[in-house]
Amino acid sequence: MTDSYRLTASQAQCKFKDGSLTVEEYAQSLLSRVKSRDEIVHAWAYLDPELVLQRARELDQVPAEKRGPLHGVAIGVKDVILTKDMPTQYNSPIYESHAPKMDAGSIAVLRANGALIFGKTTTTEFAATSVGPSHNGPKTANPHDPTRTPGGSSSGSGAAVGDLQVPIGLGTQTVGSTIRPGSFNGIYAMKPTWNSISREGQKLYSLIFDTLGLYARSVDDLKLLLDAFQLIDDEPVEDFHIKGSKFALLTLPTPEWPAPGAGTAAALQNGADLLRKQGAEVEEIVLSDEFRCMYKYHLQVLSGDGRIAFLPDYYGAKDKLHSSLVEHVENAENYTRKQQLKAFDELAAMRPKLDALADKYATIIAPSVIDEAPIGHANTGDAAFCAPWTAMHMPVVNIPGFKGENGLPIGLSLVSSRYRDQHLLRVCREVGKVFESQEGDI
Amino acid sequence: MTDSYRLTASQAQCKFKDGSLTVEEYAQSLLSRVKSRDEIVHAWAYLDPELVLQRARELDQVPAEKRGPLHGVAIGVKDVILTKDMPTQYNSPIYESHAPKMDAGSIAVLRANGALIFGKTTTTEFAATSVGPSHNGPKTANPHDPTRTPGGSSSGSGAAVGDLQVPIGLGTQTVGSTIRPGSFNGIYAMKPTWNSISREGQKLYSLIFDTLGLYARSVDDLKLLLDAFQLIDDEPVEDFHIKGSKFALLTLPTPEWPAPGAGTAAALQNGADLLRKQGAEVEEIVLSDEFRCMYKYHLQVLSGDGRIAFLPDYYGAKDKLHSSLVEHVENAENYTRKQQLKAFDELAAMRPKLDALADKYATIIAPSVIDEAPIGHANTGDAAFCAPWTAMHMPVVNIPGFKGENGLPIGLSLVSSRYRDQHLLRVCREVGKVFESQEGDI
Repeated sequence: MTDSYRLTASQAQCKFKDGSLTVEEYAQSLLSRVKSRDEIVHAWAYLDPELVLQRARELDQVPAEKRGPLHGVAIGVKDVILTKDMPTQYNSPIYESHAPKMDAGSIAVLRANGALIFGKTTTTEFAATSVGPSHNGPKTANPHDPTRTPGGSSSGSGAAVGDLQVPIGLGTQTVGSTIRPGSFNGIYAMKPTWNSISREGQKLYSLIFDTLGLYARSVDDLKLLLDAFQLIDDEPVEDFHIKGSKFALLTLPTPEWPAPGAGTAAALQNGADLLRKQGAEVEEIVLSDEFRCMYKYHLQVLSGDGRIAFLPDYYGAKDKLHSSLVEHVENAENYTRKQQLKAFDELAAMRPKLDALADKYATIIAPSVIDEAPIGHANTGDAAFCAPWTAMHMPVVNIPGFKGENGLPIGLSLVSSRYRDQHLLRVCREVGKVFESQEGDI
Repeated sequence: MTDSYRLTASQAQCKFKDGSLTVEEYAQSLLSRVKSRDEIVHAWAYLDPELVLQRARELDQVPAEKRGPLHGVAIGVKDVILTKDMPTQYNSPIYESHAPKMDAGSIAVLRANGALIFGKTTTTEFAATSVGPSHNGPKTANPHDPTRTPGGSSSGSGAAVGDLQVPIGLGTQTVGSTIRPGSFNGIYAMKPTWNSISREGQKLYSLIFDTLGLYARSVDDLKLLLDAFQLIDDEPVEDFHIKGSKFALLTLPTPEWPAPGAGTAAALQNGADLLRKQGAEVEEIVLSDEFRCMYKYHLQVLSGDGRIAFLPDYYGAKDKLHSSLVEHVENAENYTRKQQLKAFDELAAMRPKLDALADKYATIIAPSVIDEAPIGHANTGDAAFCAPWTAMHMPVVNIPGFKGENGLPIGLSLVSSRYRDQHLLRVCREVGKVFESQEGDI
């Protein structure tokens, strides 16, 4: 089966089970796809085909009864997450050929469950800048239109999954680094609840915001990952029906947030209409005044966190650090500790309040990005719409399905309260069917 | 100078500067001290004398004008912190000979400032259990009485600094793993403000509590470290005079906390009397009712964090994990996510309140431990008195100077609001002189 690269991970697993596909054949197909597309998309920071095939053959040797739940699931790993058999270079000249023999906690979980760690995907510098190749950013292009950015900082994972080079990608999100590429590349992207998956061995930018991100082309595939990470809700997850359910269509107030572009505005309207057509109630709400400082606080805390995170590299090789990171360390914004503590504490106080709001609805629906992926690669796009759910630690999924005025993908974010990740996925499964069909009559 | 092992780091630096001591000679003296005492104290998980001497000679070769602020400062590193030239084994059979070639962020900062990374010190398993050698705990003994525990989990760093084997030690604290050994071994121990020093490359137990800890035998030495880590307060640090100052002598309410033993009760009384004799006001206060759940919440959050942190090793080698860590992963306590989120949010809400309380005083004074180090090595002692300041992210210093009924060290904790670490040290410098003199007439 030479076009097995098109399969989702769950679909490939069915074929491994019924014997119609081996992991090696599957890996060969993915590698062929990469080969044919890499010159355009540039999604990989490191990829060793021989290593991939060797691991694939090892997985094929595992007897059926000993195969893990992620058997043969191929995963592209953002190059800020340690892998014991591949370098981790953070897209930083300081870390060229850096290859500590150590798996991140997330990678250890995935391997133990039978995953095929495929290669390392491109990232902006330390997953902490929003600049593209003109300032040492990744050369990665949007697979839907190579003149456009795939988003960042998880550029390579977003593009590789969007381009059918690999079914699953790992990203990270500190502001909007997972959800933004998810929307730009037309795929499912999930930022689970903060601190629900080990961040050990994942480059540190902000302790309180950094979250592992998950890319896939189906909800089934996201579910496979959540189960491997043992992300369990308090309540048993029940069947969800759109009919009779109630969503909140949430608007973020300006001038604290930018206004959605034409594409996102249409997607929000379209999404709400589709759900209403299926029998759901969609209540339009605006984030209330008590949350207006959220984004400002987010950036203040982040600045203090960057000051701490990049001090070691600043001492070691200041001249090789991006200017925005040098500014973090030197506290160029002149934030006081008191300002940053206030921001940290105020965000903490908002979390239970937004949880309570979310719990009144099946999920919150919100914009993922301002619009389609912008033209050019020098900037990876605006993360403002992703920021609230990062700051609030809430799980969020980008659901693809819409298109902007240039025919490029636009997704919408579904958001639940903390640690209702499985509930969120269950809702996304149904909503995803509707959004992807675009007609509402599935 | 064969007894230079007795010097504090700052004292040794004076001799490096005036040319009366080389780093190599100093390292030789420390290594001799280790050799003569190691059979009793067992403070080291890894120590390669040849590597130490080689690095010392390299430091001696650095021209005077290029020497860093920590030039020649010898540092014992708790074996849960990555060092690129030494193994990091976490006292876990899973990680025997584990040696990724990577420095933790803290180690990179120290090396860039000229420190001599000396060796790895013993820890309880992953710095996450309180058990001694009978359950795979470190064999480390208290240097003041080898029949007693040196405390944990930073057992080796506490004992090595207390035993003059090295002037500086790095620990970590998630509940009381830095301050408790500080008191038991009769040394200065500092847990700085949470998230003020990079935790990259430091084994993860709890994102929201884990903090790098610092051991020394003088306030000058702690100050050297804070400066290297660029821990700067908002306000310029002014001279502090005990006379005319006001302290809070804080009691933690029972039954939420245990009652202090005779030794600690006497130290608190004695400490207050000494400060009053110097012209300070010491107001006795009890932590108010709104904070009573703090320790319960701390342990609930920690349990959820352990569930996430140890999942990778649970998948990989459950049978080699201590039972308490297996229980974390399996959520043996049956905490709901909702309970843990409530605990997380309530602790967050307490932080600005306790900051405000602390800011009314020069510092808070509180017990460090229940009493002297207990007899035996199977248990590393009770961390309950250290927990509040970990949960509240507040900087705390154990000041040595008192003794219990068996003549063993007892210290007291001085605590400031968050990010007033330099202020705290300035107060500790003066209070330390008084406590160490034990007479109050210095």
